[in-house]
Amino acid sequence: MNELRLTAFETLPEFRPGDDPGLAILEAAGREGFIWSGGCALVVAQKAVSKCEGAIVQLAGVSPSADAQRLAAKLDKDPQLVEVILKESRLIIRSERGVLITETHHGWICANAGVDRSNVPGDDCVTLLPKDPDASARAIRETILRETGFGCPVVISDTFGRPWRMGLVNVAIGVAGFAPVVDLRGEVDAEGAPLEATQIALADELAAAAGMIMPKTGNTPVVAVEGLSIRAAEARADQLQRPAAQDLFR
Amino acid sequence: MNELRLTAFETLPEFRPGDDPGLAILEAAGREGFIWSGGCALVVAQKAVSKCEGAIVQLAGVSPSADAQRLAAKLDKDPQLVEVILKESRLIIRSERGVLITETHHGWICANAGVDRSNVPGDDCVTLLPKDPDASARAIRETILRETGFGCPVVISDTFGRPWRMGLVNVAIGVAGFAPVVDLRGEVDAEGAPLEATQIALADELAAAAGMIMPKTGNTPVVAVEGLSIRAAEARADQLQRPAAQDLFR
Repeated sequence: MNELRLTAFETLPEFRPGDDPGLAILEAAGREGFIWSGGCALVVAQKAVSKCEGAIVQLAGVSPSADAQRLAAKLDKDPQLVEVILKESRLIIRSERGVLITETHHGWICANAGVDRSNVPGDDCVTLLPKDPDASARAIRETILRETGFGCPVVISDTFGRPWRMGLVNVAIGVAGFAPVVDLRGEVDAEGAPLEATQIALADELAAAAGMIMPKTGNTPVVAVEGLSIRAAEARADQLQRPAAQDLFR
Repeated sequence: MNELRLTAFETLPEFRPGDDPGLAILEAAGREGFIWSGGCALVVAQKAVSKCEGAIVQLAGVSPSADAQRLAAKLDKDPQLVEVILKESRLIIRSERGVLITETHHGWICANAGVDRSNVPGDDCVTLLPKDPDASARAIRETILRETGFGCPVVISDTFGRPWRMGLVNVAIGVAGFAPVVDLRGEVDAEGAPLEATQIALADELAAAAGMIMPKTGNTPVVAVEGLSIRAAEARADQLQRPAAQDLFR
């Protein structure tokens, strides 16, 4: 428990629609001499998964609605991009000062519903978040389990901004094989006193850690984390979503 | 750049007021055979620093003001604890449903102004955040630089909750020796397209990563992170604070 190792795979291909990310990860691991084990978790950037799943939209083919046109004018954004963002959203949280923050159909609150232009090949194309990031994570986990015998926890990550704090951090938007929030309520601290309010967002810590070796300027979208002891569990990333009724900041 | 290693020091003492955290870290590193290098960063939990700095208050000696008594009754909290929290705060952000979120005098927005009961020895004692976490980080950095010749980046971390997302994550509240937010604006992605809106909260990623091996139930408050190439810079943690005028969620 006193040492963790993070390894970014460096020989992954540029992913294209129809690719199998789990198989590509296995092949890269083989080429790079990575040794699978029971103490291994994987963090996979959303963009790689979205490309494999064909979650790419060419803006030129998008017809913006009247709502999208109004909002685009207000925010000084591309109406076609705003149309795509609105299609990916179930609720607008804020639309001010050039910033469009929405709640996606999955329940994630983030800028532009996760629709992103960077690191997308092809003129005028954007990626969407995967339709079901938990399913994407499960598929990768199952491929690796089938081929290696190890059922590693998998996180699908994206980089989100935060209220109050500057800068983006990588967070989890999909998980497989482990509980994304570790509940320590009822346990005791090093002094033997009961811990208060101590639910740890392990999936977000994994994502943030991996973010350090997933440079935005490069192409290493998969990181293996070794050394954690994570209890296997069936779980969903929506355990990371604070219910609206309990949230003081919407 | 493709591998990171995180090591939690396991032979640190229980810190007491007057202890020098930098020296204690050097001694633990020596005992544990840790090899300092230029590619090493340190994450130190706030609680260890606060104990060394004597930032501990015994609640029995606190006289709650009328404001603290009213707020405590509303939130069903201990009036003495609320008094301490208000003293640590410059602004109340939310006080509802048993939750007290304030802006500390340093500018951090968090629950209970970072005042915490867990892992504090002594009946009825709480820790406060260090008075100047950047200065705490600088002192540790300078001690290690003086003794080893390596000027490692240092993060002072605490675990904060977040709007919208469940669970706590470790974040940075003090830094020394590096820019806590890495600004990639003007750089290009793997496709050669300019990156948009890409400021990365590196200090928070370091803190979150270290959080994985700083269990709340144990006592390993210092983690070394090796393998990152971080440019040395004079910097302050308030670069992580989103100015109120740019924040849509206060």
